[in-house]
Amino acid sequence: MTQISELGEFGLIHHLTDKFENKNASTIKGVGDDCAVLSYPDKQVLVTSDMLMEGIHFDLVYTPLKHLGYKAAQVNFSDVYAMNGTPRQLVVSLALGRRFSVENVEEIYEGLRLACERHQVDLVGGDTCSSVTGLALSLTCIGEAPADDVIYRSGAKENDLICVSGNLGAAYMGLQLMEREKRVFESRPAQDAEAAQPDFAGREYLLERFLKPEARRDIVERLRAAGVRPTAMMDVSDGLSSELLHICRASHCGCRVYEERIPLDYQTAVTAEELNLNVTTCALNGGEDYELLFTVPLTDHEKVEQMEDVAVIGAITREALGPQLVARDGQEFELKAQGFKAF
Amino acid sequence: MTQISELGEFGLIHHLTDKFENKNASTIKGVGDDCAVLSYPDKQVLVTSDMLMEGIHFDLVYTPLKHLGYKAAQVNFSDVYAMNGTPRQLVVSLALGRRFSVENVEEIYEGLRLACERHQVDLVGGDTCSSVTGLALSLTCIGEAPADDVIYRSGAKENDLICVSGNLGAAYMGLQLMEREKRVFESRPAQDAEAAQPDFAGREYLLERFLKPEARRDIVERLRAAGVRPTAMMDVSDGLSSELLHICRASHCGCRVYEERIPLDYQTAVTAEELNLNVTTCALNGGEDYELLFTVPLTDHEKVEQMEDVAVIGAITREALGPQLVARDGQEFELKAQGFKAF
Repeated sequence: MTQISELGEFGLIHHLTDKFENKNASTIKGVGDDCAVLSYPDKQVLVTSDMLMEGIHFDLVYTPLKHLGYKAAQVNFSDVYAMNGTPRQLVVSLALGRRFSVENVEEIYEGLRLACERHQVDLVGGDTCSSVTGLALSLTCIGEAPADDVIYRSGAKENDLICVSGNLGAAYMGLQLMEREKRVFESRPAQDAEAAQPDFAGREYLLERFLKPEARRDIVERLRAAGVRPTAMMDVSDGLSSELLHICRASHCGCRVYEERIPLDYQTAVTAEELNLNVTTCALNGGEDYELLFTVPLTDHEKVEQMEDVAVIGAITREALGPQLVARDGQEFELKAQGFKAF
Repeated sequence: MTQISELGEFGLIHHLTDKFENKNASTIKGVGDDCAVLSYPDKQVLVTSDMLMEGIHFDLVYTPLKHLGYKAAQVNFSDVYAMNGTPRQLVVSLALGRRFSVENVEEIYEGLRLACERHQVDLVGGDTCSSVTGLALSLTCIGEAPADDVIYRSGAKENDLICVSGNLGAAYMGLQLMEREKRVFESRPAQDAEAAQPDFAGREYLLERFLKPEARRDIVERLRAAGVRPTAMMDVSDGLSSELLHICRASHCGCRVYEERIPLDYQTAVTAEELNLNVTTCALNGGEDYELLFTVPLTDHEKVEQMEDVAVIGAITREALGPQLVARDGQEFELKAQGFKAF
């Protein structure tokens, strides 16, 4: 174990960022000055920021540091894809508790590096400091898009189809599984603790959805290749309900979403039953799916119907009709946001 | 007192950012989507980030929340000016402990708003979340500069003059005063605590330097007006020694700085003596001055000599000579970084 004090703040930053290589022409100067210097003469610049606090957004009992770094980066990339853009640069600030070693921080950076590698993003700066308590991460991602390509939440029109990528609720179910194992682990007598190994066999997908989400660049590329331009788009971080309400509010419209069309993974459904949870509630309010939610003109119906890993779940309506969920039995309910990260 | 839960995360963000108005043409879309959207067709984009943790960077016992917001913004603006740029957008992430009310957060935002107003910067996004412990702030500032204007740390050349704006060590001395008063306050019997008022009469300047620093846009403008283009520049956040070493390392040069030329305020000197501290050590290693340190070609000697609030403190030398301080008695010492924020 190497103490952080052995390297000092600047030594640590140099040690951590040394392995990152800049790949983008827009990165003029990365780490090492008062500011990073970027160049975006022909594109609009997209900026998004996320803060992750230990004890609120993650629990180090079941979150490996490498996964934490990976996820923190992906979550930011997801916001850029949700604007129909391409992430290019990442700025990372870390506040570290006293118990952190250089090796611990290296693990976080290894996760960041993998995510940056996969999405061809440059690490261009940040800040590393101490924390009297837990770990805090704050990431800012900078991306680009041609001005005409940027897709806001505000462009949805009546009769547009509402689509979502992948499936929903799996990350939330993964979190529930890990919380359950943590309780089991903590209630065990101390002498058994080391032998205790959680049994997640057959549930790996759910854990991966929570610990290691993938920002859906593939969906953005698929839409582009098919010549489909969404009228509104955002990523599902707080939960489908919450995001639908954002689009309705920003676009001054209502929506009609069909419960039976909400895409679910088999493991999500099985685990929900086992844990006595309503799977639709989990899909609507679970959050952290990092799938893309978007609306397309009715004329693109065939194209999105045929698109791999995309489901049409409903349609945009007049504002006066409000945001509605049509249940399996035909009953209608008003959609409400109940994200699990709320205050 | 209004509970944050009464407004919810999105209600709170809306409530706080409502009073901010965008002023810059480069801000296409601010708060309210997955990303902010900016446009910089003719300029290079500068990005800087800072994280401030309760208990490490600030102590709420003597830091009013409004000052905290103001300072957090100024610290970021300072980094942009240090590249010879103009700050334009600010992204603010906050993690709030449970004891925080809406009114508390409003105070932080009031400070942010004042700083943004003064420097004509737009608040374009951020993240607000809970913290299990203290307050954490993470700010990212985006600025601009014509490509040819950007000044790095790496451009200093042999024989260049080393200049610094304002005076040094005052913020550190302000911090010492407040730490002393805090100790006095805490050691007093409880019944006296309310009546106890710290006596800072005559020392207001030192407190202000620590609590309410001003990013030196005026210096950047003064240099531009005088036709002086620094060869290297950075801001003094960790302390003069540390920053000189950064410039020497990045520019592959040495330096010779004269102790007697380091600009000090009268109150800094008096208070150092009173507190039994070496004033030069405070000026070299205190940090948080947010003054500008820069090097100019020897041919600009007359111009910088006449410049208001700018002092020439030494010269750049060959790399082999290393970073040297010439003491008042003529003795030479190697400069070492000993920032007070270190791990």
